[in-house]
Amino acid sequence: MTPGADALVLLRAALGDRVDTSPASLAAARADKSGHAASGLPLAVVHARSVEDVQQTLRVAAGTGTPVVTRGAGTGLAGGANAGDGEIALSVRSMDRILEVRPDDLLAVVEPGILNAELNAALAPHGLWWAPDPASRAISTVGGNIATGAGGLLCAKYGVVRDAVLGVDLVLADGRLLHLGHRTVKGVTGLDLTSLVVGSEGTLGVVVGATLKLRRLVPGEVCTIAATFRDVRAAAEASAAVTASGAQPAIMELMDAASLAAVHALLRLAAPTPGAAQLTVQTDGPAAVAEADAIAEVLRRAGGTVAVSHDRDEGERLLTIRRSMHPAMETLGTALIEDVSVPRSALPAMFDEIARVEREHGVVIPTVAHAGDGNLHPNFIFEAQPDESGIVQAPDHIWAAADDLFRAALRLGGTLTGEHGVGVLKRRWLADELGDDQWELQRQITRVFDPQGILNPGKVFAR
Amino acid sequence: MTPGADALVLLRAALGDRVDTSPASLAAARADKSGHAASGLPLAVVHARSVEDVQQTLRVAAGTGTPVVTRGAGTGLAGGANAGDGEIALSVRSMDRILEVRPDDLLAVVEPGILNAELNAALAPHGLWWAPDPASRAISTVGGNIATGAGGLLCAKYGVVRDAVLGVDLVLADGRLLHLGHRTVKGVTGLDLTSLVVGSEGTLGVVVGATLKLRRLVPGEVCTIAATFRDVRAAAEASAAVTASGAQPAIMELMDAASLAAVHALLRLAAPTPGAAQLTVQTDGPAAVAEADAIAEVLRRAGGTVAVSHDRDEGERLLTIRRSMHPAMETLGTALIEDVSVPRSALPAMFDEIARVEREHGVVIPTVAHAGDGNLHPNFIFEAQPDESGIVQAPDHIWAAADDLFRAALRLGGTLTGEHGVGVLKRRWLADELGDDQWELQRQITRVFDPQGILNPGKVFAR
Repeated sequence: MTPGADALVLLRAALGDRVDTSPASLAAARADKSGHAASGLPLAVVHARSVEDVQQTLRVAAGTGTPVVTRGAGTGLAGGANAGDGEIALSVRSMDRILEVRPDDLLAVVEPGILNAELNAALAPHGLWWAPDPASRAISTVGGNIATGAGGLLCAKYGVVRDAVLGVDLVLADGRLLHLGHRTVKGVTGLDLTSLVVGSEGTLGVVVGATLKLRRLVPGEVCTIAATFRDVRAAAEASAAVTASGAQPAIMELMDAASLAAVHALLRLAAPTPGAAQLTVQTDGPAAVAEADAIAEVLRRAGGTVAVSHDRDEGERLLTIRRSMHPAMETLGTALIEDVSVPRSALPAMFDEIARVEREHGVVIPTVAHAGDGNLHPNFIFEAQPDESGIVQAPDHIWAAADDLFRAALRLGGTLTGEHGVGVLKRRWLADELGDDQWELQRQITRVFDPQGILNPGKVFAR
Repeated sequence: MTPGADALVLLRAALGDRVDTSPASLAAARADKSGHAASGLPLAVVHARSVEDVQQTLRVAAGTGTPVVTRGAGTGLAGGANAGDGEIALSVRSMDRILEVRPDDLLAVVEPGILNAELNAALAPHGLWWAPDPASRAISTVGGNIATGAGGLLCAKYGVVRDAVLGVDLVLADGRLLHLGHRTVKGVTGLDLTSLVVGSEGTLGVVVGATLKLRRLVPGEVCTIAATFRDVRAAAEASAAVTASGAQPAIMELMDAASLAAVHALLRLAAPTPGAAQLTVQTDGPAAVAEADAIAEVLRRAGGTVAVSHDRDEGERLLTIRRSMHPAMETLGTALIEDVSVPRSALPAMFDEIARVEREHGVVIPTVAHAGDGNLHPNFIFEAQPDESGIVQAPDHIWAAADDLFRAALRLGGTLTGEHGVGVLKRRWLADELGDDQWELQRQITRVFDPQGILNPGKVFAR
């Protein structure tokens, strides 16, 4: 019997009908929303329904030396949860309960498979919310948000996932369960392994539970500002001026002309002015109106055509344009969605670099940015050419352009990935940013959690 | 030549007059503000003035197998920076420059030896501040704040050190320099080693630089509420009611009757009502007045006698009472200052436990609490009995009472240390909280950074 067949027999013995080898499930587990798919088919998809199911799976994996790829909803953008040949795809999507909500302690304890939006819908009647708001929040899981260290639109004001997780329950590669972190606001007992697990992309263990730090729903008005500028550089300079002015918008989103055109076409809106770029800014809290007025003035002085709305519904409508970016890109071709982040003052220079890369490589790169925090999503558009097994990979000239763009971001004091993670798509640049010494140190840390190297091998720390 | 003498010769050859073996310096390096001192004298105090000095020191240490204890201003409360027999005390206190302040990117790059208050004084003209505000801020260093993962009074609203550090430069045990983290708001490239270093108490490397996340100074009024309650339990219940009401004070400090009496005596104020406890609450930001009024109403309904002040100076005067706790305790005897943290809803129950420990162990435990975040500082008062070398250690019956208190905090869902760290004073309880598996995993992670075990041995991970 081959090692894979052995593992499958043991999984079935331990987990019965939770072990799924249907062709459709195996095929689905190969891919995420990045357009990338693993080569080959996983051995099985295990649909865990409990911590014990996860532990059983890991015990079989460790005993047979079988790789394990943990998956939530499969909405990742870096290929980090794609399971390939001979691997076990461990889905925690069915572990989706809210175990505890404590308004008095501003925390919730949840299982990893709950969708971000479902959690927030359940928290709202308590007057609470979990702040991380990736654009995928309607379809992505809290566990996936933790595994990637997700960000979103509200980060400059309300923080990222790392700021909103007090503790995680982690199943190690050998099946042991650890409770990391604490339920208290402060806590410095030992090393902060909770933060180490956030963003570790399935390389340290399987997150089977999380204690989340909640916020009160923000009372008061929400004001939304839409400002158009003659070009993307002017919009980027205006966004930097807003940050430098001391204002703290809840949301500040930038869309370049190509992005705006694609979204307007998708939503059947009137075509935008050619070349024009847009900033959408939202303020909230007790000073929302005064802040919106001050920001509007900064944007006008920066050359923008500015409209302010005090209507929540109108604000949501304006943000729908931003949130439609992903489907709009799909109408243009296949998109490699990148995720560089730069210091906010470097946003105009980064847009110059994107224009240069477009020119020099002859590619089209519609770009949106979370301008409030300096995180850009350049979309490299290309014609998909599936290989014999249906896998779509970006062609070499797209990767050459992306390489040029990554290096430009690093030169500007930036980082390779602000919120999507490294996965398989960015692993070849990881050592460029970390340096060889830190890369090796990080890899050794993963080996402390996973001496056999069975947790998500080939992801993040593979060159 | 003994190993120690060998190391000293090599240090002198490499670092010349930065190597200090004066009896006074060696004696000072044995102790911090905890009252605990290491046994024996360190080999030398190295006063590093540059990253290169730190690297040279570590190269000598690694080459000779000599332990290194990194120190800032020596204001720790857990003995974590105390250097003893045969160890090198590596002081980074003289590395105190601000290398960069970027108001547009809301960051500063600093050396580790700068005092927290000096940094904030330099940031104020830019309209900026670094939020972590340990009560020791006038005398403690940013590097020490990072090493302990310090907290302070403002944490519930403005976060702890972990929330305010974007990156650190770290010299490893073998002298190599790593740049961890990033300058961007978002960044998930690889594992979050910056967060791992925060609170690692000198066990992973020497922090030689830090990129700090800054905030804008908060505009508007500051309102201060002083509320007295018939006893400490009533005050604790009132503070929990404030949190549960949805209000977000900037500061909410609780002092029990024994603490109040000692501080009033020290400051020559009129004696407080016997048995009464006090809450001091501060609100800030655009809604400060409305929030103060709402909080005052909650406190009145909870049985408090409440006074609200809209005067900043009066507010500072009220907080001076709280900030005088440490010197006031010194008037009562020697204090073992503890640092447990519990979920905010458990504060009343924790005060019940403290009263029980006082009764059952026959000890006096004046206690203050950062009630806004659930972090308590019970002060175990005892008569100091220095041993033959002048070392003061808490007697066994005090440790027995502290042990009882720690276990009560853990039962209530709390943690051993909210902001002071483990050091030597709490290491024997570390495995009780982490569990043996996690304790061993954490120790193995330290070995990845420091294979020889020369960085602060005997601290944190020693039973």
